[in-house]
Amino acid sequence: MTNTQVTLVQIDNYGPWTVTPEPRREADLQTLQSRLYADISQFVGNRGGYTFFTRFDNIIAVTNGLSMDDHELLQESVGNRYPVTLSLGVATGTTPVQALADATALIQEAGSAQDKSRRECLDGRTIEDGHRTTDDVQIAHFDVIDATGNYTDELNAFDTFIEIEQGYAELMRHMRHAHDSLSFFVGGDNIIVTCPDLTEGDYEDAIFHVEEAVGVELQVGVGRGENAHDAGFDAKHALETCRADGTRVELEWK
Amino acid sequence: MTNTQVTLVQIDNYGPWTVTPEPRREADLQTLQSRLYADISQFVGNRGGYTFFTRFDNIIAVTNGLSMDDHELLQESVGNRYPVTLSLGVATGTTPVQALADATALIQEAGSAQDKSRRECLDGRTIEDGHRTTDDVQIAHFDVIDATGNYTDELNAFDTFIEIEQGYAELMRHMRHAHDSLSFFVGGDNIIVTCPDLTEGDYEDAIFHVEEAVGVELQVGVGRGENAHDAGFDAKHALETCRADGTRVELEWK
Amino acid sequence: MTNTQVTLVQIDNYGPWTVTPEPRREADLQTLQSRLYADISQFVGNRGGYTFFTRFDNIIAVTNGLSMDDHELLQESVGNRYPVTLSLGVATGTTPVQALADATALIQEAGSAQDKSRRECLDGRTIEDGHRTTDDVQIAHFDVIDATGNYTDELNAFDTFIEIEQGYAELMRHMRHAHDSLSFFVGGDNIIVTCPDLTEGDYEDAIFHVEEAVGVELQVGVGRGENAHDAGFDAKHALETCRADGTRVELEWK
Amino acid sequence: MTNTQVTLVQIDNYGPWTVTPEPRREADLQTLQSRLYADISQFVGNRGGYTFFTRFDNIIAVTNGLSMDDHELLQESVGNRYPVTLSLGVATGTTPVQALADATALIQEAGSAQDKSRRECLDGRTIEDGHRTTDDVQIAHFDVIDATGNYTDELNAFDTFIEIEQGYAELMRHMRHAHDSLSFFVGGDNIIVTCPDLTEGDYEDAIFHVEEAVGVELQVGVGRGENAHDAGFDAKHALETCRADGTRVELEWK
Repeated sequence: MTNTQVTLVQIDNYGPWTVTPEPRREADLQTLQSRLYADISQFVGNRGGYTFFTRFDNIIAVTNGLSMDDHELLQESVGNRYPVTLSLGVATGTTPVQALADATALIQEAGSAQDKSRRECLDGRTIEDGHRTTDDVQIAHFDVIDATGNYTDELNAFDTFIEIEQGYAELMRHMRHAHDSLSFFVGGDNIIVTCPDLTEGDYEDAIFHVEEAVGVELQVGVGRGENAHDAGFDAKHALETCRADGTRVELEWK
Repeated sequence: MTNTQVTLVQIDNYGPWTVTPEPRREADLQTLQSRLYADISQFVGNRGGYTFFTRFDNIIAVTNGLSMDDHELLQESVGNRYPVTLSLGVATGTTPVQALADATALIQEAGSAQDKSRRECLDGRTIEDGHRTTDDVQIAHFDVIDATGNYTDELNAFDTFIEIEQGYAELMRHMRHAHDSLSFFVGGDNIIVTCPDLTEGDYEDAIFHVEEAVGVELQVGVGRGENAHDAGFDAKHALETCRADGTRVELEWK
Repeated sequence: MTNTQVTLVQIDNYGPWTVTPEPRREADLQTLQSRLYADISQFVGNRGGYTFFTRFDNIIAVTNGLSMDDHELLQESVGNRYPVTLSLGVATGTTPVQALADATALIQEAGSAQDKSRRECLDGRTIEDGHRTTDDVQIAHFDVIDATGNYTDELNAFDTFIEIEQGYAELMRHMRHAHDSLSFFVGGDNIIVTCPDLTEGDYEDAIFHVEEAVGVELQVGVGRGENAHDAGFDAKHALETCRADGTRVELEWK
Repeated sequence: MTNTQVTLVQIDNYGPWTVTPEPRREADLQTLQSRLYADISQFVGNRGGYTFFTRFDNIIAVTNGLSMDDHELLQESVGNRYPVTLSLGVATGTTPVQALADATALIQEAGSAQDKSRRECLDGRTIEDGHRTTDDVQIAHFDVIDATGNYTDELNAFDTFIEIEQGYAELMRHMRHAHDSLSFFVGGDNIIVTCPDLTEGDYEDAIFHVEEAVGVELQVGVGRGENAHDAGFDAKHALETCRADGTRVELEWK
């Protein structure tokens, strides 16, 4: 049974900061957001977690393996090197959505995202070392079948992008509502989803649903592990099996 | 009349590189993609352009003000500092979609995105200095009305994200098909769109369409200029007017 | 008694890479070197260590608290994100110079710095958790007394720089030959030294020696700890005491 | 006749910032300093200039080709993305030291480096486009003859570093006092010097002086150009000639 530890990272008072005293150059905001995300990805990733850029001012991470001290260090390091600060909420749950909802509530209770007095909140709980198992995290790595042949080398780059966005928008809603899962576009034609215990049939349904709804053909590799990196790396290997064998769903532990 | 210069930046042979000789750590790919995007954003932004992360292996930029020599320098600098290389296609057009389609075709003609012998292509044309006008670029900056009050402080962070994604997916298709425009989510609740000459009515229609289709309420500030930064900065100011006055559409040049 | 764990990080085949097939833009080499150093500083620093840029192609770190698995992860992450790779040698010793000499020998035995077939060597040993003590690391943080008043606000910026460089060059040789210590300029007017067990008298001698030799007046705060961060943070506080009280040498544990 | 444009970049109020309200983690300061330097190196380098990290809180650049508007943009961009701000002084002179002295004076007149009310000063003048010539900048690129064979593969990494530091300290003082030149260690065994019009004999003297004083054997390639990149790239090629032919001094324009 999965036990996903989810962290919500929210930049404090970001909206007002971006326009005070005047609006800031957009290219600079994009650079700041991307580099901040990259730093969080390295910090969390080096401890076995996965970080998803999400909305950039609100970033969601699967943090099994990180302690509250680790979260505090991340917060301190960012506070030392950026013109903004972070609030962090950490929670665990039998489904990723439940954990994320609890993590969000911790931050919301501390104060509004645009409350200038709410700074560097840190609240929540992590899974104690003795209670971690290799079933805690289930990661599904979807990609579009032959995106390069069907889209990238054929359509203009924006129409290719639209197809992939529509596929993502459909999958994200389906996986959240049907399976309490959190889906994230990670670049190219790849979507990574953190799931509770799902079956091969659940993944086949998801693929069928997206193909029916928007005409985008997905395949998926799924892995399990004690943390997101272990689960996700197995999922990547399972996806290679899909590519090699032409299958649509591969579970690495079968 | 707009004359948008669009550059498509495509990482050479990226898909195969990410899994050769073995799949690479996901957190490292995310960090690499984000930092590469941030560097391109700085380079282009420091010359008055706007860069949108799009799919990270395919990045779209509005590059009025950049010459072919500038593009060549960007390509050389990235080649010196990253384990991947870039191909660049540059084109102009009376609509952004037309320019982007031509830019894409230049790269597609050079070779597949996964053709390992296609490296560092650079092709296209820029607008000569003497032919540039302050009408060349039209930028519309949309955001969700009171996203913080309606979503961020109320829903869990993923459900907020779903709302914003659905709003974006709807707007992107509408603006592309009805108005040959290119729309990009840029973080938070913000979407920046590069447009041809559109009217106040066109923007009202777009907002109405998105509200009807998915229930997300947008407002928009629009600016014009010789380059994306000038147009976009005016658009940001127009958006501040929406916030202050409670209006839905503001054109900075009225 | 100190037990310093030192890691030598050496970029593989860097000299040839910088000029093959042609020399590369100097500004790009500087950017690459600095960002690679910054990443190593974050990775090591987040585990309680200190990293010194040294010669940029050869970087020295005090890595008490990092395991061989941590070193392997650092190597893998850099290999995924940079156009160069790293070799790492790790050793411990009762003096920092001894540890650094052993770490260097491990890499030299694997192959020349310009041997293109020597890639990603990883060799050495770390201190086992059960054997670590709060005396393992001694860090001395020197700075120039009132550098701002005496130099920065008075001389041209290069003549200020010369004074500080001469002070550093003198201190580094003295501390290495008299005390088997490793000294590193870390910016501004600051020099951080990793030492074996030294006495207040040893530090007074060092300060006297530098003042006699080149006329630069230093003060120093010293700390001890289980890792470089703990020792160094105490040293920073001790230095604040020097500034507040006008003393030349402060040991935080007295 | 050279006409070097030099910019002094000074972080505002940095010393106090690093210890307010408490000292900050050293690894974070190192990361911040290095990444800020890397960004300045890219900005200046993309316009044909060279940037030297110097003391990190005081950075010296050769900026022929950059206008005052360029300097203002750099200042604005850093202010948007870092927790610190920059003051910039720009000057030109027939010798680099003269230009640097004037640039320094501009900032000193605006206020102390630790005056918390002195923020984002920008003062000075650049060379007008019509007055630039291909003789404006002379760059000399020194390196240690066979550093790898003589030092890196033979001595421990700190003793190698000491040798190179001593060579640098000697060369920097000689070139400043005898030739009004600014010398900077740039990593590895490389030192780049920005000079006025010097002769082959001047470079031979410098090499002889360093060898006599500290026993370090240097070779040098020299180039001239309208900006630092042009001059420096020629210098790199001249240095390759030294390596190939075994000569000690090569001037690229002979």
